[in-house]
Amino acid sequence: METSAKATSANPKVVIIGGGFGGLHAARKLANQPVDVTLIDRTNHHLFQPLLYQVATAMLSPADIAQPIRAILRDAKNIRVVMGQVESIDMKAKLVHTHALQYPFQYLILAAGARHSYFGNDQWEAFAPGLKNLSDALELRRRILDSFEIAESTGDPEIRKAAMTFVIIGAGPTGVEMAGSISELAKRTIVHDFRRIQTQRARILLLDAAPKVLPTFADSLGVSARKQLEKLDIEVRLRTEVVGVTPDGVQLEKEFIRARTVVWAAGNTASPLAKQLGEIDRQGRIIVNKDLSVPGHPELFAIGDVANFPLQDGKPLPGVAPLAMQSGEHAARNILAQVLGSPTRMFRYWDKGTMATIGRNKAIADLKIIKLSGFLAWLCWLFIHLLFIVELRNRILIFLQWAWSYTTYTSGARLTYRTFRPAVPAKEGVRAVTEDML
Amino acid sequence: METSAKATSANPKVVIIGGGFGGLHAARKLANQPVDVTLIDRTNHHLFQPLLYQVATAMLSPADIAQPIRAILRDAKNIRVVMGQVESIDMKAKLVHTHALQYPFQYLILAAGARHSYFGNDQWEAFAPGLKNLSDALELRRRILDSFEIAESTGDPEIRKAAMTFVIIGAGPTGVEMAGSISELAKRTIVHDFRRIQTQRARILLLDAAPKVLPTFADSLGVSARKQLEKLDIEVRLRTEVVGVTPDGVQLEKEFIRARTVVWAAGNTASPLAKQLGEIDRQGRIIVNKDLSVPGHPELFAIGDVANFPLQDGKPLPGVAPLAMQSGEHAARNILAQVLGSPTRMFRYWDKGTMATIGRNKAIADLKIIKLSGFLAWLCWLFIHLLFIVELRNRILIFLQWAWSYTTYTSGARLTYRTFRPAVPAKEGVRAVTEDML
Repeated sequence: METSAKATSANPKVVIIGGGFGGLHAARKLANQPVDVTLIDRTNHHLFQPLLYQVATAMLSPADIAQPIRAILRDAKNIRVVMGQVESIDMKAKLVHTHALQYPFQYLILAAGARHSYFGNDQWEAFAPGLKNLSDALELRRRILDSFEIAESTGDPEIRKAAMTFVIIGAGPTGVEMAGSISELAKRTIVHDFRRIQTQRARILLLDAAPKVLPTFADSLGVSARKQLEKLDIEVRLRTEVVGVTPDGVQLEKEFIRARTVVWAAGNTASPLAKQLGEIDRQGRIIVNKDLSVPGHPELFAIGDVANFPLQDGKPLPGVAPLAMQSGEHAARNILAQVLGSPTRMFRYWDKGTMATIGRNKAIADLKIIKLSGFLAWLCWLFIHLLFIVELRNRILIFLQWAWSYTTYTSGARLTYRTFRPAVPAKEGVRAVTEDML
Repeated sequence: METSAKATSANPKVVIIGGGFGGLHAARKLANQPVDVTLIDRTNHHLFQPLLYQVATAMLSPADIAQPIRAILRDAKNIRVVMGQVESIDMKAKLVHTHALQYPFQYLILAAGARHSYFGNDQWEAFAPGLKNLSDALELRRRILDSFEIAESTGDPEIRKAAMTFVIIGAGPTGVEMAGSISELAKRTIVHDFRRIQTQRARILLLDAAPKVLPTFADSLGVSARKQLEKLDIEVRLRTEVVGVTPDGVQLEKEFIRARTVVWAAGNTASPLAKQLGEIDRQGRIIVNKDLSVPGHPELFAIGDVANFPLQDGKPLPGVAPLAMQSGEHAARNILAQVLGSPTRMFRYWDKGTMATIGRNKAIADLKIIKLSGFLAWLCWLFIHLLFIVELRNRILIFLQWAWSYTTYTSGARLTYRTFRPAVPAKEGVRAVTEDML
């Protein structure tokens, strides 16, 4: 086949591992350049992760924030997309081994990202899932929506109380956004849908061991975020250590909180592929040179959440999407430079600012030149996020979803896909109770 | 709580089991009437089943064709929605037992619908899933999309051939629509996305033991449907008995077809609740009186796919959505009649016609007054289906999806949610093959 012939041309081969912000932007920079690119990802889609929490809280559908990687790169005939699992990387033979084939390379970009870290307590994951990919989001959505169903249909006040309690561990952007939109779901979207429970009475706790909310933001914004969260009746508990997570709830140093839904938004750890390739830091990120190559391997680059970047102006770089995009493009540029025999350039991150939403028309934004909070920040957040969605179609659809939900207080995607499996323990003493005795 | 007080008023209690077309239309007819209604469903949503195949083939997202039952019935304060599993029904004590509580009733509407039947070969289900609910559709979508991925990334021609072969068992509306839209996916939507395989070469087979396509339709339309299918290079094989389904494919009497994706669209069997309540037919459907009540139980009604209706004008009634809706409303009316002490009325089905699509701008429609096929029928199908979607928002979104896909040949929801798990057997001899040797 002509395409396959092209794929085996004499151009240097570049393999990119990961189709997130970093990998995708690297690939786009290499599109229609004199290189043969293979992008390998475990999923078939690129995910707009900053809106993933809206899928978890049923405001958006998966298709609104994810696009098939193949479709995005369809016109770049020098790029091949492979959906598969990378098992190992042989830097000597210059081969990437997947579950099926192995892919040779002259240049490799590691953009495998990070998963959440349970600080050595991996047994907590089953009871407190995190939020990194679509299946995480749909699992959290199911737990959240099922909790209200169980609260409505149980006769046991203890079970109802636990089902109406939502604990978010970690007060970074993800934790703040999850807490805010669970609160909105309970107080606004579904408030008229139930007959026995009053969903607006849902108890939402946001825990963090740190002394402040949104530690990576300016203090003033952290304070404002906390005020906005408390306006939504979210219990913000800082300097709070989680010592255990069980099927029944969260164990703090001096208290056990019974909760059916626990969300983990606390820590990240880089892809295990990193440690195969070089020296890693405490979060498992591979340490890179100023030009984003890995020490000792000018042909190997690491970007985004899997990379530990050199300090810039004495400060560490934030693990945000723009950093992944910029480092991805920079790594691609440096590969093209090497192909053309010119020297690589050092990477410099341009910080356009950071923002986080806290439910309907509340947000905070640090745009460097100006710090915003409240409604203005929210509008700004809306606008910028729409702008960055890869596909036009999705921009239109999301805008419509938001406009519709904003005016009608409904939520488009309030669905769980699985049929109901009794989550209420059989020992529950109320099986013989008829609903009208309650 | 005031609502709970209202729920325990002196009004007669009606329990509806099932939130499909039948159950939902019964509930709507009982909304704000002098009865206390409890609708029990295993899922949290009402599903517009006629478009489910478009979710399975990634044209639509689950949220486009499903709405939360609670949201639909939100304003009917005399209706309570319960998400739960009905375990048994006690007609003496007049109690419906669920996984958690039990619900008393004076009147009961059984609208539990049907699942697919494997004619005693339930072991086939794992290899040839059917299409009844959202998780079925998402599972089929995953298998279909993963198949193209595996075909692209395997080095084994046998595995590629099986991955590029799609077998649909059953040439009724679901089978015809699945075959048509898998063909469209392969020939149009994803045709430019792959580098090694040529998706338009996918082999699609539509099998049926019957001598014709769409047996419930007029002969002329069945013939036309078959012509349209063959125009799409779909191999239509009638009078073909399936004697076995394995992980590797489909066993016919004289031939084994290697296929990674097999879709079951052959037979239905009614909910097992039916046999608890009365005399059932071969498809497990409960036999009902002319007024839709169950013999010996004037307070018990069965509707939709779970009911075996008396012959009308000497002919059996078709198992379609309009029958479920009309019978649901009729059962509700007869319950209100009994509550008011008036006699029940016999049910008469008004056949507005039937239709089926066969991929992009192909369809057939039997509108009684006129029989259509091809593009006109397709437009008509588009219009009528949009009309019947419960929620306005979804009508708008689906119309946009369709318009967008129609003009751009893209597909909105081409996503699989799970990360890739190697479906390629480890013994595959090509692990050591590098992709450019192929």
